[in-house]
Amino acid sequence: MGLDQVRAKYTELQSAGLKLDLTRGKPSPEQLDLSNALLALPGDGNFNAGDGTDVRNYGGLQGLTEARALFTELVGVPVGQIVLGNNASLALMHDTIMFALLKGMCDSEKPWGRQEISFLCPVPGYDRHFAICEAHGIKMIPVPLLDDGPNMDAVEQLVANDASIKGMWCVPKYSNPTGAVYSDENVERLAGMKTAAKDFRIFWDNAYGVHHLTVESIGLANLIELSVAKGNANRAFVFASSSKITLAGAGISAVGSSKENVSWLLKQMFPQTIGSDKVNQLRHVMFLKDAAGIHALMAKHRALLAPKFEAVLKVFAAELTELKDVGWTKPKGGYFISLEVPKGCAKSVVALAKEAGVVLTPAGSTHPLGVDPEDRVIRIAPSFPSLADVEQAAKVVAVCVQVAAGEMV
Amino acid sequence: MGLDQVRAKYTELQSAGLKLDLTRGKPSPEQLDLSNALLALPGDGNFNAGDGTDVRNYGGLQGLTEARALFTELVGVPVGQIVLGNNASLALMHDTIMFALLKGMCDSEKPWGRQEISFLCPVPGYDRHFAICEAHGIKMIPVPLLDDGPNMDAVEQLVANDASIKGMWCVPKYSNPTGAVYSDENVERLAGMKTAAKDFRIFWDNAYGVHHLTVESIGLANLIELSVAKGNANRAFVFASSSKITLAGAGISAVGSSKENVSWLLKQMFPQTIGSDKVNQLRHVMFLKDAAGIHALMAKHRALLAPKFEAVLKVFAAELTELKDVGWTKPKGGYFISLEVPKGCAKSVVALAKEAGVVLTPAGSTHPLGVDPEDRVIRIAPSFPSLADVEQAAKVVAVCVQVAAGEMV
Repeated sequence: MGLDQVRAKYTELQSAGLKLDLTRGKPSPEQLDLSNALLALPGDGNFNAGDGTDVRNYGGLQGLTEARALFTELVGVPVGQIVLGNNASLALMHDTIMFALLKGMCDSEKPWGRQEISFLCPVPGYDRHFAICEAHGIKMIPVPLLDDGPNMDAVEQLVANDASIKGMWCVPKYSNPTGAVYSDENVERLAGMKTAAKDFRIFWDNAYGVHHLTVESIGLANLIELSVAKGNANRAFVFASSSKITLAGAGISAVGSSKENVSWLLKQMFPQTIGSDKVNQLRHVMFLKDAAGIHALMAKHRALLAPKFEAVLKVFAAELTELKDVGWTKPKGGYFISLEVPKGCAKSVVALAKEAGVVLTPAGSTHPLGVDPEDRVIRIAPSFPSLADVEQAAKVVAVCVQVAAGEMV
Repeated sequence: MGLDQVRAKYTELQSAGLKLDLTRGKPSPEQLDLSNALLALPGDGNFNAGDGTDVRNYGGLQGLTEARALFTELVGVPVGQIVLGNNASLALMHDTIMFALLKGMCDSEKPWGRQEISFLCPVPGYDRHFAICEAHGIKMIPVPLLDDGPNMDAVEQLVANDASIKGMWCVPKYSNPTGAVYSDENVERLAGMKTAAKDFRIFWDNAYGVHHLTVESIGLANLIELSVAKGNANRAFVFASSSKITLAGAGISAVGSSKENVSWLLKQMFPQTIGSDKVNQLRHVMFLKDAAGIHALMAKHRALLAPKFEAVLKVFAAELTELKDVGWTKPKGGYFISLEVPKGCAKSVVALAKEAGVVLTPAGSTHPLGVDPEDRVIRIAPSFPSLADVEQAAKVVAVCVQVAAGEMV
């Protein structure tokens, strides 16, 4: 198809008055419906935890034991090393870093805020992670994210030689936005690598640990166990939440780490709160029950999500396969597809799509400070719109890529 | 009654094997029962806010408009100037200060954490406020809390001359622990006083704004309106929560301030969270409905709480009136009675009570760093135990005061 034809097609789409949104990784209403039972739980008269705690009252900084137990699989530590937060694991990540800036980690010589510090940021990555660094003046050093995790040669060299590198963001499974899953070997290297900063921490955001899109259940090596084995017990904070398991805005969140990190964190949290919402914890225990309950629920999510991903991939395969320098990921889980367009085209594609009524995440948002130096990466979030809308939106995106790539030639 | 008799009485009580707890301002199970309907709300199928927002999904950093409306009376600003938090207004206070330490307020020259700063602390006061300052190295300057608010002459002089004073804690109504209510004149002075620090802030913790213990509904002047009128629009952050209205551990919290402070706060919160739990916000709107709903519920709390306060006051009046240098407050609202014992006796009384099976808040906890320089103040929290237990505990406390005071002579 020549550029004129493609342009004509685009003009036609433009006049169709579409209003579609592929921006954020939000579950669809049908996915949220799967957890509607939560809206009536724990039920009038149900307010006692397993140990008799009245969940309505104050108390319990660490969270109910049985609610922590829901996260042992995702976080990979025993309940004693898990702390529950409210409805946002993002807040747990943010606050952990804020505490380190103000007070330092348990093994820091001084507060992180009293020195110039940097974080390694595998790219493409998650804009909300980068926003925390940006807000607090933490320098972000991008490292390439490959199909099996970050480029570990680059990572190892950087952390070994630069003591300003105090942290690293990782979405180790079905990563946002590429869907990459860190290989066991790479997790082991992350656990064992030598770091110039002795208070170096990995922020391991296991947001999609059980969010499979295929029948294949892909595993993930246990970073905390491996870190202990390698003599770096305090290396990792592991975050998870039920946001994309139950209700996105009203779930429960968790962080797990070494005993020492957990007592440090509880000490920092003590002046901040008496404890997170235990009624919501009990509600989730009653609804999810256990790991099997979580997996059964996730299978229902998959039934709703997988067709939307397939629709996008089918359109891309049909429309974009021939195009030079265009590629996309085929994730086996998570919430995103990462689309790569020819250098210098991503912004144009997003702008063209907008003109045609399809809102995409701003180009660059997958990179620190919102700047994708090659202007290549576009994050596609197929979860929220209906299947028909997703398919239509993917077609628009494909035409926009054709126009932008054609105009580059 | 001579000291020997008092000692004999104490020994008798000691052997009674009591196990009573007057430590924390926790609502009783009967009070929590008043809000049990919340445990089944919003109910399966109810997930739309007034504007159609699906409360189950992500979004809404400031909180649902109708849930913010529940707080306009307690906070004293329009809904546009209110931000909702999760289950702890303490976290809103803590985080506001943490943001100021890291970034400075909207009118700060530099982050509060980059300089030596101090907070004024009316004493006796609330230990959790002091804990925030202690954790973050903020110097606490005590000022006497009188029956109608802090000693304003002292306050005005301090803030006018010491630019390191960036903040002040206030529980303006039914204060923790004395029950003092700030007079209109004192609120006006707080709003208008000249401060050496141009980014000075009052942290106005209106925790007990509707928590009356008498039929008389005592008012409170509107600090934010008065501050605007006096040309100090950004002077105050006002905090409130439903913790002691609905469920102590699972309520919703709110902070209100000037437009400028609110945009500053929302900017700081953006990297921390997508927004607080909107399902819990909707749940509270359905249950409380409006200001009238809140007041009707608070009348039921009063019916449960007032007899407990009366029981303590009756025991104290009968047993302690004759004792020199012993006094106590007779609060018209809130959660506490403040008992003053002779100088140097508070710790002994708490220790004696513990030996007799009655746990009291540690002496000193009403003062910065846990040090009451005169060792005089004991906070009595009659809300949680049953009426019979409260009466029994008060009797034990009275005997302990008699022993300690007698031994001092």
